[in-house]
Amino acid sequence: MARIKLTIEYDGTDFVGWQVQPNGVSIQQRVELALEQLLGEKVRVYSSGRTDAGVHALGMVCHFDSDRGLPLSAWREGVNRFLPVTIAVRKAEIVDDDFHARFSAKRKRYRYSLMRTEVRSPLQRRTSWQIRQPLDMVSMRRAAQQFVGEHDFAAFRTSGCAAETTWRRIFSVDLIEEGEMLYIDVCGSGFLKNMVRMMIGTLVEIGRGKRPVIDVEKLLCGSMEIGPALTAPAQGLCLMEVEY
Amino acid sequence: MARIKLTIEYDGTDFVGWQVQPNGVSIQQRVELALEQLLGEKVRVYSSGRTDAGVHALGMVCHFDSDRGLPLSAWREGVNRFLPVTIAVRKAEIVDDDFHARFSAKRKRYRYSLMRTEVRSPLQRRTSWQIRQPLDMVSMRRAAQQFVGEHDFAAFRTSGCAAETTWRRIFSVDLIEEGEMLYIDVCGSGFLKNMVRMMIGTLVEIGRGKRPVIDVEKLLCGSMEIGPALTAPAQGLCLMEVEY
Repeated sequence: MARIKLTIEYDGTDFVGWQVQPNGVSIQQRVELALEQLLGEKVRVYSSGRTDAGVHALGMVCHFDSDRGLPLSAWREGVNRFLPVTIAVRKAEIVDDDFHARFSAKRKRYRYSLMRTEVRSPLQRRTSWQIRQPLDMVSMRRAAQQFVGEHDFAAFRTSGCAAETTWRRIFSVDLIEEGEMLYIDVCGSGFLKNMVRMMIGTLVEIGRGKRPVIDVEKLLCGSMEIGPALTAPAQGLCLMEVEY
Repeated sequence: MARIKLTIEYDGTDFVGWQVQPNGVSIQQRVELALEQLLGEKVRVYSSGRTDAGVHALGMVCHFDSDRGLPLSAWREGVNRFLPVTIAVRKAEIVDDDFHARFSAKRKRYRYSLMRTEVRSPLQRRTSWQIRQPLDMVSMRRAAQQFVGEHDFAAFRTSGCAAETTWRRIFSVDLIEEGEMLYIDVCGSGFLKNMVRMMIGTLVEIGRGKRPVIDVEKLLCGSMEIGPALTAPAQGLCLMEVEY
């Protein structure tokens, strides 16, 4: 019996998210189906976490056990043969038996892509959020740093979040400008449901001048006197990497 | 009567190309339909050229005449309201009456995107050509320079090409490496049908070691002793800019 770790890339546009859902096709479902078609038996995969409907991934990680002694390239190419063009195993590795895609994860890195332009962009529409107003980058950078450290992110999750604790550690929030594009890279120990999107939504509201920088601190302290965080749309978000 | 110049971006994936075709929906058709819906009358647009089925554009240019004195933002936003998400007017300008999208064009710049990876990439699949083999960049760069200058590109066009002369001037061919991605930027006075894709196909064959560098010169001299140029797939190509 060997434990296999898969690193998976997907275009999340047409999926209901990673996790199996009653209302549509999920990425997990397609990966498990591909493994079943390859191996002739049902396989349950365990992922580093979930991604919402429409969110993309360059480096989602999942694991499963198998007693088939396939070479690693066969795991990668074999599974890919049964996956749609929108999902691909980018890497297959054999890992220790105590490796767990979720519990062994040390850090996750997400990238959110914003396109600062008055006019919509057909080529970026599936992978970015269009912002028509000018953004105050100085305020956004100051606000972004307020997220760094260990905080109670209770104000940055949706009602469906079932996490036991709402404390999370953020290692860095970097804003990278490339022409019209603004990338916000968020690296943390773990994330609550919708947490990255609500962090981004809050930063954009601050950039638009609709909120003061201090609102990040207020939201992290559970202040009730200010409005809830805006949730940035799913298509701008991409899970870049899970570190173990 | 004013002459309006539109700069148009599109995701060419689901279109039969720029020009109206019997076998599917073209970008020109959707732009003319949007203008008709906006103005209540049929409008014929003249473009800087055509793009093949599946080819993208960041900066396709076309023009038309109208006696409606709309402000430029209304031309842009008005037309966009009637266009699908895959097409957008990025810029509208009023130009002199003697401006012609095709005949006034001085240079066109195309970018071809190659992804050098053994495994297919779901997020790049619509906008790049995946190359599994290692590429010999030194040979490719040497070969690319052979295209620069004025040459007879008869060997770099498909049979459907109706151009009067096959001589074209190439100003530059630049190879830009960014991690797994390799971008090839081709700037020229004009291009024959499939010319950029056949130039790229030839460079890739040279990079793979299937052709010597000298083959570019032989093809440009009309040599019959070597095989025809390979045509790179459409989805990697994007018309970046037309200069006037």
